[in-house]
Amino acid sequence: MRHAMPVGLIGPREATPEQLQAARNLGYALAGTGMTILCGGKGGVMEAAAFGAKRAGGIVIGLLPEDDANEANPFLTVALPTGLGITRNALIARASLCLIAIGGGLGTLSEMALGLQWNKPVFTLLGAPLVRGAEVFDDVDTLVASVANWLVTARQTQTAKE
Amino acid sequence: MRHAMPVGLIGPREATPEQLQAARNLGYALAGTGMTILCGGKGGVMEAAAFGAKRAGGIVIGLLPEDDANEANPFLTVALPTGLGITRNALIARASLCLIAIGGGLGTLSEMALGLQWNKPVFTLLGAPLVRGAEVFDDVDTLVASVANWLVTARQTQTAKE
Amino acid sequence: MRHAMPVGLIGPREATPEQLQAARNLGYALAGTGMTILCGGKGGVMEAAAFGAKRAGGIVIGLLPEDDANEANPFLTVALPTGLGITRNALIARASLCLIAIGGGLGTLSEMALGLQWNKPVFTLLGAPLVRGAEVFDDVDTLVASVANWLVTARQTQTAKE
Amino acid sequence: MRHAMPVGLIGPREATPEQLQAARNLGYALAGTGMTILCGGKGGVMEAAAFGAKRAGGIVIGLLPEDDANEANPFLTVALPTGLGITRNALIARASLCLIAIGGGLGTLSEMALGLQWNKPVFTLLGAPLVRGAEVFDDVDTLVASVANWLVTARQTQTAKE
Repeated sequence: MRHAMPVGLIGPREATPEQLQAARNLGYALAGTGMTILCGGKGGVMEAAAFGAKRAGGIVIGLLPEDDANEANPFLTVALPTGLGITRNALIARASLCLIAIGGGLGTLSEMALGLQWNKPVFTLLGAPLVRGAEVFDDVDTLVASVANWLVTARQTQTAKE
Repeated sequence: MRHAMPVGLIGPREATPEQLQAARNLGYALAGTGMTILCGGKGGVMEAAAFGAKRAGGIVIGLLPEDDANEANPFLTVALPTGLGITRNALIARASLCLIAIGGGLGTLSEMALGLQWNKPVFTLLGAPLVRGAEVFDDVDTLVASVANWLVTARQTQTAKE
Repeated sequence: MRHAMPVGLIGPREATPEQLQAARNLGYALAGTGMTILCGGKGGVMEAAAFGAKRAGGIVIGLLPEDDANEANPFLTVALPTGLGITRNALIARASLCLIAIGGGLGTLSEMALGLQWNKPVFTLLGAPLVRGAEVFDDVDTLVASVANWLVTARQTQTAKE
Repeated sequence: MRHAMPVGLIGPREATPEQLQAARNLGYALAGTGMTILCGGKGGVMEAAAFGAKRAGGIVIGLLPEDDANEANPFLTVALPTGLGITRNALIARASLCLIAIGGGLGTLSEMALGLQWNKPVFTLLGAPLVRGAEVFDDVDTLVASVANWLVTARQTQTAKE
């Protein structure tokens, strides 16, 4: 936990204005607390979160499905083209401390299921798929506070072990 | 479609007697119609299906999460250790013509979500996760008939294109 | 070792007549001794080996870089499209008991390097890249005998441990 | 090319003092010119390069083979545990604009071979494996100048196309 693993931000390319607004606010708030964000690097929720994080001076990494970064969103700090297609979803879930889903369909569902299988906390907002074990939130502020609380507790547990 | 892509058989290691019986029958029936089976290579539903397919002289391939085949089930025709951990779920969904789920939890859910994202038909039995787009069946025979029908139609469509 | 892990057969799509002839003979000989073959599923050396193995009634599995099996060679027993692009090279090295290279360039070199890193024996023929740790052979018969010898010894070591 | 793809820095965990010194200087120089660095996240050359980049205020991302970041080097800006084992080598090569190798054995060789297959420039220093297509350098400064030159040219070509 000492090392800078990112928070995973997942959600659809096709998003509602409300989801996009939440993603911008969420990216801004996460970056403001010093968290690094990992996402799929594409448009919609991913782009909005990267935009928000960039405004707060944060770091956003995009794991792209393609072989190159030509279709990455322009707000990523670092674009990592994996050439893995949608299989890169598994890497997003694997490499994140926890996952935050805003809306989303089958892609988001696959990431949530993999994250929960790896015992990662999954926080959701605004119509993300319902999966047993994921925690549903109504607004960005409560969700960010909950993620921050979890991170602090996890860090303390880690430190106590060392 | 001319080439021998397999049918994906997914389901949990911890299964009920009813699910195991269905998996054995399903493996036997699929192998009997000449279909090759791809699965995760472990115990439970995967082992029961491999057992059934072996009795019918069929081919079953296991994509294992581990680095070696020491923990593969003993009924696989070919064991392929991927060293990818649970990320190998994505490969099972990617490499299969269609997916058949018997029961299952988060792992099965992730495979179904990925398969549906790749437009693969998903057939389910006996308590598999409910996902929009997956077809729910009550018994093995009806499911096998439906899979066989789909394959015949898919092959004809493919042949007509060529 | 009890479980049916395959022998990996690697080599280029663009091959000389001599390499293709060796691949056909090698596929036939390996299949004749009951070994399952794993390859990249494409043309050239991979197709020639699959052709030879098929004539001997053997099983050949192709891990394809593409999302579907449309460009697989027609002699595969099972075609597994991975959607991973060239990254599937790592899976071929990871999932094989040992690797046999016929000719080859950068792709074959990457598979040899990964296989050797995982302590897999690597046998080469007819102009495969020279890598320290890989064993160079002059003809198919001596190579097949050497692979068979290694497999027998490896099985005995495994059995003695159990 | 507009988007921030990283430069890949590859090399062994067991390194000579000369290689470690070069890696520190290289990390510092690359970060000083504003380049983001992608590496394997472990010790030796990877840790030295991350240390140097951190001193220059740069960003270093580590794609770890493990499931968590417990064994990451402490100088990474972001640690991404992939759970892929050595197969993550392919991702390092795939996601980088170009590769720079300092020393190295089979792991570095596999990354160089994959990078060259994907037409990525490969620059090497201090005993990296010799592979046709990779450019060999004698000192850090000349190498950094050459990488910077290549990046500028690549960006101009990209811009001209747009």
